[in-house]
Amino acid sequence: MISDRVRAWTRGLANGLAQIMDRLGFTPNMLTVLGFLLMIPIGVLLAAGYFRAGAIFILLAGAFDGLDGALARLTDRVTSFGGFLDSTLDRYAEGVLYLGLLVFYQRHPDNVAVVLVYLTIVGSLLVSYTRARAEGAGIACKVGVFTRFERIAVLVLGLFSGWMLPALAILALFSHITALQRIWHVFRQARNAGQP
Amino acid sequence: MISDRVRAWTRGLANGLAQIMDRLGFTPNMLTVLGFLLMIPIGVLLAAGYFRAGAIFILLAGAFDGLDGALARLTDRVTSFGGFLDSTLDRYAEGVLYLGLLVFYQRHPDNVAVVLVYLTIVGSLLVSYTRARAEGAGIACKVGVFTRFERIAVLVLGLFSGWMLPALAILALFSHITALQRIWHVFRQARNAGQP
Repeated sequence: MISDRVRAWTRGLANGLAQIMDRLGFTPNMLTVLGFLLMIPIGVLLAAGYFRAGAIFILLAGAFDGLDGALARLTDRVTSFGGFLDSTLDRYAEGVLYLGLLVFYQRHPDNVAVVLVYLTIVGSLLVSYTRARAEGAGIACKVGVFTRFERIAVLVLGLFSGWMLPALAILALFSHITALQRIWHVFRQARNAGQP
Repeated sequence: MISDRVRAWTRGLANGLAQIMDRLGFTPNMLTVLGFLLMIPIGVLLAAGYFRAGAIFILLAGAFDGLDGALARLTDRVTSFGGFLDSTLDRYAEGVLYLGLLVFYQRHPDNVAVVLVYLTIVGSLLVSYTRARAEGAGIACKVGVFTRFERIAVLVLGLFSGWMLPALAILALFSHITALQRIWHVFRQARNAGQP
């Protein structure tokens, strides 16, 4: 997957920035919460129709997003709560971004766009839910075409190009395809483990 | 919690019906999928504005919802995939119901209602996500004021009474409060286990 390669490439940069954050006195959980709070003004930008500015800040926030994990590893402070908080606030961050888009498409009424925004957030949350629920049942479940990285890439491209409706259609469609891929994956894994 | 008592009370009835389903040749997973498919016409009813009919069918579907688990226990076919499929399609079922409401409030334009529907589905999915993600990290997490049972009760009351806006406001607010309660619960559990 593309996301794995990009993650490896950016790890070096993230470690350098994480060291700076450490010296400034930040804890990993503080960075996690800060990264989420940054999403709120971005959601407001989207609601107000500043799509390109929103896209730039989404990319910057995305770069910031890896710092909490990098800092935790660097300072040996990886905790189960830290991972939980990071995952949960990542979901909330998407909720805030798409709320911004929903409000925009109510102010410049577009019923199709509103439904696509709704389908996209439900699909995105289901992609994350299926993984978390599968892992709770002891089954690794990272498969699927549209993980968070691909979703953000399509969203940013849509915001930049002004082709938001096609971008939202792709997001809505492929997030649900990914959720279905994960259901199928869990079915196969469970079957291979001897359960019908 | 109220939900626990009602579940115990209905277990006897569910077991009887599950025996009938077993004789008719249904498997637990077939009932799970069927229960989800029943939600699609209910979503259409809501979109078309037949709120009271929708409410009645939501209650019937809710009664049907316990049958898959009852049948699985009765016939000793409890599987990790069965539990996973049931949880995941429960989330999709809510997605379909609230999509129906979203479409209704676009046809009879009400911007506040559309935003409340959006906030409610995001909150509901986050309530489920936090539990699944916490259990993946080995922390039980059923706490919170607004589990699925309470959400359905408020939704049905709103649909029956015609007071949908207050019902949606309660649903949106308390689902997010529940998600926050769960984040706090995981924090405390992890701290008690000796992790900062």
